[in-house]
Amino acid sequence: MADIIIMKAVSSDNQAHADKVRGILDRNNVIGFNLVSSPGAGKTTLLEKTIQDNPDLKFSVIEGDVFTSRDAKRIEEAGAPSIQLNTEGSCHLTAHMIESVLPRISLDGIDFLVVENIGNLICPSGYPLGEHKRITLLSTPEGSDKVRKYPHAFAEADIVLITKMDIAGAVNFDYQVVIDDLKAVNPEVEPWPMSVVSGEGMDRWYDWLKSIKTQA
Amino acid sequence: MADIIIMKAVSSDNQAHADKVRGILDRNNVIGFNLVSSPGAGKTTLLEKTIQDNPDLKFSVIEGDVFTSRDAKRIEEAGAPSIQLNTEGSCHLTAHMIESVLPRISLDGIDFLVVENIGNLICPSGYPLGEHKRITLLSTPEGSDKVRKYPHAFAEADIVLITKMDIAGAVNFDYQVVIDDLKAVNPEVEPWPMSVVSGEGMDRWYDWLKSIKTQA
Repeated sequence: MADIIIMKAVSSDNQAHADKVRGILDRNNVIGFNLVSSPGAGKTTLLEKTIQDNPDLKFSVIEGDVFTSRDAKRIEEAGAPSIQLNTEGSCHLTAHMIESVLPRISLDGIDFLVVENIGNLICPSGYPLGEHKRITLLSTPEGSDKVRKYPHAFAEADIVLITKMDIAGAVNFDYQVVIDDLKAVNPEVEPWPMSVVSGEGMDRWYDWLKSIKTQA
Repeated sequence: MADIIIMKAVSSDNQAHADKVRGILDRNNVIGFNLVSSPGAGKTTLLEKTIQDNPDLKFSVIEGDVFTSRDAKRIEEAGAPSIQLNTEGSCHLTAHMIESVLPRISLDGIDFLVVENIGNLICPSGYPLGEHKRITLLSTPEGSDKVRKYPHAFAEADIVLITKMDIAGAVNFDYQVVIDDLKAVNPEVEPWPMSVVSGEGMDRWYDWLKSIKTQA
């Protein structure tokens, strides 16, 4: 059974803790991800599939949730070690929380430490966790207007994944709106269309993971 | 063009402001709603359709958003007066914000004042806005596990609407899980299945609106 750790936001000096986390990851040659999205955009499902399809890539996962959930168990069943970090009501993770649980995670032989943030497009912005890459997910049923409505979540992203492309037609998702809105807030980043159901975009995602692992 | 009002969370005494809002609504024979959900669960779309289909019911709408958006314009195009209330980054509305904009809203002849809260399943909990009914929406593509993961949003609801039922099959939504989880956190409330696309549940929703208007 995955660990469940309950944490409260206590630190005001987020950046200093983020720098410490980043230093620990760098010394261990581990690449850190911070996954941000609304509830139900498909963070855990993408991670499960990615872990299952890539036995040559070694992941360790910190599952952030407001209250106890079974996401850490899902990740362990997919084949990667995972810690469940519960904020007991707080709406985002802090770098101090990550720093506090890092001693419980074996970084030896790990390629990627993935932090799945709380399902929230607002509050995680402004709280870097020491990650190398911030990855923001937007699922098609949320609607094409969400980049404009929650610009910080997308402006700070290194990668933007548009998930659930298999139902884009059924929910009248307008991809061009997302491309245009993202150009306005984060012109260096183009969204990647993805679907774990149809497989769209998965090879590109896996190739990218392999390429940044090689660089590390 | 709808008004756009920018507000910041300044008040710590939320309940006192909520009581004032409630008193103003009661004196004007207006029923107040507080709509809570994740981003993209369908709050604005449900409102648009409800306004269009019920010319005999008079709505006025406060559209909460983190930054400027066109939701207030959508509501006005659907036929109801609307004010856009922007929090400039804050993740929920407060009763003080509602109290501050109430003088700008004509309550004369209005049946329902609907506040569309910020798209967020965490932070609006614990901030009653003086509403008579808290209505929480969960859309099927968010997944069946969301009541358990965000219990406060559902525990405090008077009505729980499960939206986008037309794509429930495509996204493997398990309705029974929601029923069971809701029983655990809010045993008096049963979820209502809805879809503005297929029309499922709309008559029940409209009948309920008409019934509580009669009681007011």
